[in-house]
Amino acid sequence: MAKILTNRADDYSQWYNDIILKGGLADYSAVKGCMVIKPHGYALWENMRNELDRMFKETGHQNAYFPLFIPKSFLSKEAAHVEGFAKECAVVTHYRLKNDPNGGGVIVDPDAKLEEELIVRPTSETIIWNTYKDWIQSYRDLPLLINQWANVVRWEMRTRLFLRTTEFLWQEGHTAHATKEEAIEETTKMLEVYATFAEEFMAMPVVRGVKTANERFAGAEDTYCIEALMQDGKALQAGTSHFLGQNFAKAFDVKFQDKSNNYDYVWATSWGVSTRLVGALVMAHSDDDGLILPPKIAPLQVVIVPIFNKDVEAQAKIRKVAEELMSTLKQNNIRVKFDDDDNTRSGWKFAEYELKGVPVRIALGARDLENNVAEVARRDTKEKSSLSLDNLSGQVIQLLDDIQKNMYNKALQFRNENTRKVDNWDEFVKVLDEQAGFVSAHWDGTPATEEKIKELTKATIRCIPLNNPQEEGKCILTGNPSKERVLFARAY
Amino acid sequence: MAKILTNRADDYSQWYNDIILKGGLADYSAVKGCMVIKPHGYALWENMRNELDRMFKETGHQNAYFPLFIPKSFLSKEAAHVEGFAKECAVVTHYRLKNDPNGGGVIVDPDAKLEEELIVRPTSETIIWNTYKDWIQSYRDLPLLINQWANVVRWEMRTRLFLRTTEFLWQEGHTAHATKEEAIEETTKMLEVYATFAEEFMAMPVVRGVKTANERFAGAEDTYCIEALMQDGKALQAGTSHFLGQNFAKAFDVKFQDKSNNYDYVWATSWGVSTRLVGALVMAHSDDDGLILPPKIAPLQVVIVPIFNKDVEAQAKIRKVAEELMSTLKQNNIRVKFDDDDNTRSGWKFAEYELKGVPVRIALGARDLENNVAEVARRDTKEKSSLSLDNLSGQVIQLLDDIQKNMYNKALQFRNENTRKVDNWDEFVKVLDEQAGFVSAHWDGTPATEEKIKELTKATIRCIPLNNPQEEGKCILTGNPSKERVLFARAY
Repeated sequence: MAKILTNRADDYSQWYNDIILKGGLADYSAVKGCMVIKPHGYALWENMRNELDRMFKETGHQNAYFPLFIPKSFLSKEAAHVEGFAKECAVVTHYRLKNDPNGGGVIVDPDAKLEEELIVRPTSETIIWNTYKDWIQSYRDLPLLINQWANVVRWEMRTRLFLRTTEFLWQEGHTAHATKEEAIEETTKMLEVYATFAEEFMAMPVVRGVKTANERFAGAEDTYCIEALMQDGKALQAGTSHFLGQNFAKAFDVKFQDKSNNYDYVWATSWGVSTRLVGALVMAHSDDDGLILPPKIAPLQVVIVPIFNKDVEAQAKIRKVAEELMSTLKQNNIRVKFDDDDNTRSGWKFAEYELKGVPVRIALGARDLENNVAEVARRDTKEKSSLSLDNLSGQVIQLLDDIQKNMYNKALQFRNENTRKVDNWDEFVKVLDEQAGFVSAHWDGTPATEEKIKELTKATIRCIPLNNPQEEGKCILTGNPSKERVLFARAY
Repeated sequence: MAKILTNRADDYSQWYNDIILKGGLADYSAVKGCMVIKPHGYALWENMRNELDRMFKETGHQNAYFPLFIPKSFLSKEAAHVEGFAKECAVVTHYRLKNDPNGGGVIVDPDAKLEEELIVRPTSETIIWNTYKDWIQSYRDLPLLINQWANVVRWEMRTRLFLRTTEFLWQEGHTAHATKEEAIEETTKMLEVYATFAEEFMAMPVVRGVKTANERFAGAEDTYCIEALMQDGKALQAGTSHFLGQNFAKAFDVKFQDKSNNYDYVWATSWGVSTRLVGALVMAHSDDDGLILPPKIAPLQVVIVPIFNKDVEAQAKIRKVAEELMSTLKQNNIRVKFDDDDNTRSGWKFAEYELKGVPVRIALGARDLENNVAEVARRDTKEKSSLSLDNLSGQVIQLLDDIQKNMYNKALQFRNENTRKVDNWDEFVKVLDEQAGFVSAHWDGTPATEEKIKELTKATIRCIPLNNPQEEGKCILTGNPSKERVLFARAY
């Protein structure tokens, strides 16, 4: 069978594009920088979204929906925010088209110019805090714990499918609190929700940490993040949770009356993950034959492929076993499909389901049934085994669980093997160039040094890990004293 | 207790705005014509969306996601479509802001003008059919059954919360088929999905019908619709399903090779419902005290309110009964809340949950418990009854079912009483002015007559009902021969 994907070792970047396109996750679109999320990719996103949504609701959050457009003037209200966000945006200037009097289709109607331009939201802090002003008067209105699932637009010059697109889908939580402590607690609680989701559902270990000032969200006092390591040794920021202090409350004048009838500005957080997670998932686990999806979020968890010969009686028996198995698995909420399409050969189907990342494939042939077994292949290790038909569903459910755990452990081992303590500059550069991965090194704590290291090596400080051990040391670049190591890496 | 809402009889339109705003469904936003969907409104939409999504998947559809932006030139490709849709749109002309050199915040960067303007999608036929061109080569690629949940923007001059907003949320199905017959079958199948959803979940009876040429979707060969009657006697189009013929396939050159190796253009459908349904739901059922929500989609189905006196032992007993009841109801997948907030009086809570439309309210007081009963109030009829604590959960589940049915029957009776056969012009005008509702009358079948009737009465032909009895008659306006009655109404 012809090789479908470029090998990772030959060209990792091309492998990634191949797998996204040929694995049916996404496609390029006619609009520069925007992608089409295809059914398989969207189903994956839906499963991720549903789990996250459940976790948000379990932690007391409600969903709402705010406008797509933000009046231009709103962006200027929070000084740091406008610096970081207001620049590369889609700007709506007109609200009508008209027929071209010269017959060239439609043209923008110059008479339909907006008095104030509207920005397609790159993130919604400003429009939301402008709304919260009307919703919050008293401590009784707090905390306000709201999340939004939405599309956002950031005009990116260099885009990559899922990883960096002009339009992307995400969720953004925006909460308001009476005290600083409560807001910080919310920020770290939601970081932990993201970390739990990444590890338990995506089978992707993450480092929980806090960003340096350079890498902070525009308008935040502190940005917490989860960082994952991809198979090529580059890091990927998989989610962020921001403690916004009173910055947006002050910018939009959101005050509340406390129990003692004093007025104070409200404390804020915001936190988000996006369709970028789909790209992270692909790069964390998949191989040269296609996607490897963790069972908990795989759109299809089990596929049953019949191996029919010309014996009609044997066909009927295979069909009966397949249907019983499917029915039992469905009763156990397993997403399963019986692919009896006779227009394609089983070899083609095997390759296709490998490409699509279905965790477990069960082949049922006449001889297997005679021996009371089925051939069961797991996608993660590509191991095949003959399993007894007795309680096959129970064995398959156990196997799905094993695959989920194995994928996590494999990714964790990879990260452990690719996180290196380094104590001098030459080694630092050498490790980055020859081995990649996370580099744990001392840094003197100044933005200037961080900037210089980035300039020299393209590596950035991914985060200062939470509960980071305190340790005397010398900055990798300047030799100045440092009291803890931070995690460097080249990143997506 | 102060009256919260304007009465319907005094000012129906004001009542509607009051209930949307005070019932916590939506709020005005800083962007003209756009609304904020508040948590209660969004939870309602989520429940509606989840049921519809399940029904779409059960009928073989998959979700995908296409870009928010449409290149301007795409809109001109289908002639009728551009006439109907391309005009009142949000137009993106620039992709960057910059600091105002005069210090006035940010301004649009004149150097960042797009070569071709982008339109914020008012509907996605054009961008989707441009994509389908790459996805469809052979009959094996058909049918292609795709749905998208998305936001769309139509620049409306006169907006109403939920009913007509510049941005709204919706789903749009876009399918491609090998034959005309199959596409028409899909169109009517999805109409039936909408009708089933409206009747079984929203408890809102609908007329299934087909639009006249005047009211057809821009680019469709036929537009099927479901039409509901609101309590003020005005009709509301609640969903549409379009048979698009080969119009978009021709405009975007989407051909497929059939089994005999011949090439033909693909046949298309599209169908959608939107957050407008939330407005329809409110106007179909609610009363002067607030929302009345059908149990199947109510965010909260049952609320338990304790009536505490100072007897601590009695309080503990009430709490115990409430928690047991809540636990049993939750096991039966009932959405239930125990509101033991002691900052608000029970009278205030009663009014609040009536306003929010919670179908069943259970009050638990010390004396009730002594008598082994609870006071159970149903929101739809406001009847209260003392129900035995023995198997209370079973009785409540039955009551929710009764409420769902009763709401449907009441709305159906209202529609039947307000659908009138009329055979002369004077009566036609009189009925419209004095009684409103649907008017079933003969029409000569010409767009000119339809237009004239609209001009004279503001009534439009809502639809020609499916399976309409054929009957000789004379047009209400012109007296010309007609072979069937059609449904007229003033409409939202």
